Amino acid sequence: MSDHGEVAGDGQWGPPYLLYLGQATDDLAIKTARGLAFWRPEWCVGQHRHLDCRYTLGLPDMSFEQAHEAGANTMVIGTANAGGVMAPETVADIVEALNAGLNVIAGLHQKLRDNPYIVAAARRNGRVLYDARDFTRNIPVGNGRKRAGRRLLTVGTDCSVGKMYTTLALERSMHKRGLTADFRATGQTGIFVAGGGIPVDSVIADFISGAAEWISPAREDGGWDLIEGQGSLFHPSYAGVSLGLLHGSQPDALVLCHEPTRRHMRGLPDSPVPDLKRCLDANIEAARLTNPAVKAVGIALNTSNLSEHEAQAMCREISGRLQLPCEDPVTMGVEGIVDSLLACCAN
Amino acid sequence: MSDHGEVAGDGQWGPPYLLYLGQATDDLAIKTARGLAFWRPEWCVGQHRHLDCRYTLGLPDMSFEQAHEAGANTMVIGTANAGGVMAPETVADIVEALNAGLNVIAGLHQKLRDNPYIVAAARRNGRVLYDARDFTRNIPVGNGRKRAGRRLLTVGTDCSVGKMYTTLALERSMHKRGLTADFRATGQTGIFVAGGGIPVDSVIADFISGAAEWISPAREDGGWDLIEGQGSLFHPSYAGVSLGLLHGSQPDALVLCHEPTRRHMRGLPDSPVPDLKRCLDANIEAARLTNPAVKAVGIALNTSNLSEHEAQAMCREISGRLQLPCEDPVTMGVEGIVDSLLACCAN
Repeated sequence: MSDHGEVAGDGQWGPPYLLYLGQATDDLAIKTARGLAFWRPEWCVGQHRHLDCRYTLGLPDMSFEQAHEAGANTMVIGTANAGGVMAPETVADIVEALNAGLNVIAGLHQKLRDNPYIVAAARRNGRVLYDARDFTRNIPVGNGRKRAGRRLLTVGTDCSVGKMYTTLALERSMHKRGLTADFRATGQTGIFVAGGGIPVDSVIADFISGAAEWISPAREDGGWDLIEGQGSLFHPSYAGVSLGLLHGSQPDALVLCHEPTRRHMRGLPDSPVPDLKRCLDANIEAARLTNPAVKAVGIALNTSNLSEHEAQAMCREISGRLQLPCEDPVTMGVEGIVDSLLACCAN
Repeated sequence: MSDHGEVAGDGQWGPPYLLYLGQATDDLAIKTARGLAFWRPEWCVGQHRHLDCRYTLGLPDMSFEQAHEAGANTMVIGTANAGGVMAPETVADIVEALNAGLNVIAGLHQKLRDNPYIVAAARRNGRVLYDARDFTRNIPVGNGRKRAGRRLLTVGTDCSVGKMYTTLALERSMHKRGLTADFRATGQTGIFVAGGGIPVDSVIADFISGAAEWISPAREDGGWDLIEGQGSLFHPSYAGVSLGLLHGSQPDALVLCHEPTRRHMRGLPDSPVPDLKRCLDANIEAARLTNPAVKAVGIALNTSNLSEHEAQAMCREISGRLQLPCEDPVTMGVEGIVDSLLACCAN
């Protein structure tokens, strides 16, 4: 579905998908596949895993040939290999999948296109390879000019606090209400879920806000672009990505995502997690540069490390303190946040 | 002097330099060459220009062979060609310079390494090509950990307001006072002046703060790293670069650079230039994430569009309002700012 970061073949990558679990030995290794199976079950015809893989997504187990016969277009490699190195077994599996007629897409640090065996197999079979982290398309520099359409961006106190999940939950809820809304992907899993997008942390630094403008162009149909946030303005490693995304998105509405038991910024033991109010204020202040009318419409809390009672109490406390709906999208849904969005930003 | 973005030859690029003016028809086209001639006159053995070039840097005019005989190591191409396309005459000149034994470095959008004639000539002659905008070296992601040493960063209300000039003026002044201080380059002209650095707007977005950490590593000699700023937190196209640079630099001291007659952000007629106080506060607030002790030590004003009287009055007014020294580095020097730096940050 996309034309960048690719070795081109006869067709295009896209669903239906075969999800590759391989030899996954922990939950993190199948995070991308799980995201696809959860958010786009209708796109996932099966899973492929080794005999010693203890994980399952509850999909039919298929060989590459079986998947191709069942209509799969593309195999998705989402496993995080130790040290970012692709295991020889994975390379062999990818070659076999290409031989069976599948396109292959991946979000690994090690690129498909850098492996000569994989590239040769793709060329031989006329298949497409797509590396979601490898963004080479030319896009314009951001221009900051106000464009038509309404946009919501999820922002976070930290990385990996549920921004993609929250954004997709908002899309699902809005669709159920009959509203027009489209998830706009900025990370690898999101791109596979959306069938397109830009991995905004992988563009050249000068083009961060341009990438955000490119994935959510002017729209005149009254619908919403729901843009997947990345990182945090308070993460010392990645805040530049978050700020460029914030400026380029020109959001009318922000949802702040937070994981309340996190003790420090992801990967940085010496960096404390910012206070919610301070984080929200900083995002609003920065967002005003390209959209002075920006409003916060809710807080999405990842309460997976809390008891149900604790989670409910914390949501109430935060909601009262910040005067915004506060919900865990997984256990409580996002109806309060969508209500707030519609109340704030109806036109 | 650097090992990235290169076609490798027998040696290394670096001074002595021959400055290529070519057919430059406006002042902007020789901006890089002028910067080198001004800040590193001892490195510049001559200039090369066509007969119809009306500009001069006051250096001896030399053929490529003459420059090589005079000891030039490297020819510097700093001209901005219309539309970013390299003129056929420029390509021919570069090939001739390589044939004469010079290495060639450039900061053009169009890469030396993408031109087959230039690459072939470099290989044939064993010469180095270096594209300052083409950063391919692997650097780590920023970690935000406090490191030894003292750092000053120039920040701006906008792009192109004098950040490189101010940083180099601070270096020159501190050297005159017998202080240890090193200019750290983040843009193409600065890299040629410093003989190294990282074009921070050209790294992959995830590595902006990592690039800043890399160019100003821990130092134990009591000296200062003076880091060239880029863009502006208030520029809708490039603020991500500015924020990552701010976080990665962990500055102890900030100098805010400003051009008081600019009516809108560079290239964006609809975007107003931020108020000085607001801009300084936003930079201080963001910088505290990685260095809570950060202080503003001065304002550098580009008063080239004002009369001397207007310039003096404006500096006094701003200095009184912000309670910081305010000087035009070109016409007034930076002694007040260096005094303020030493008073604020002596340890």
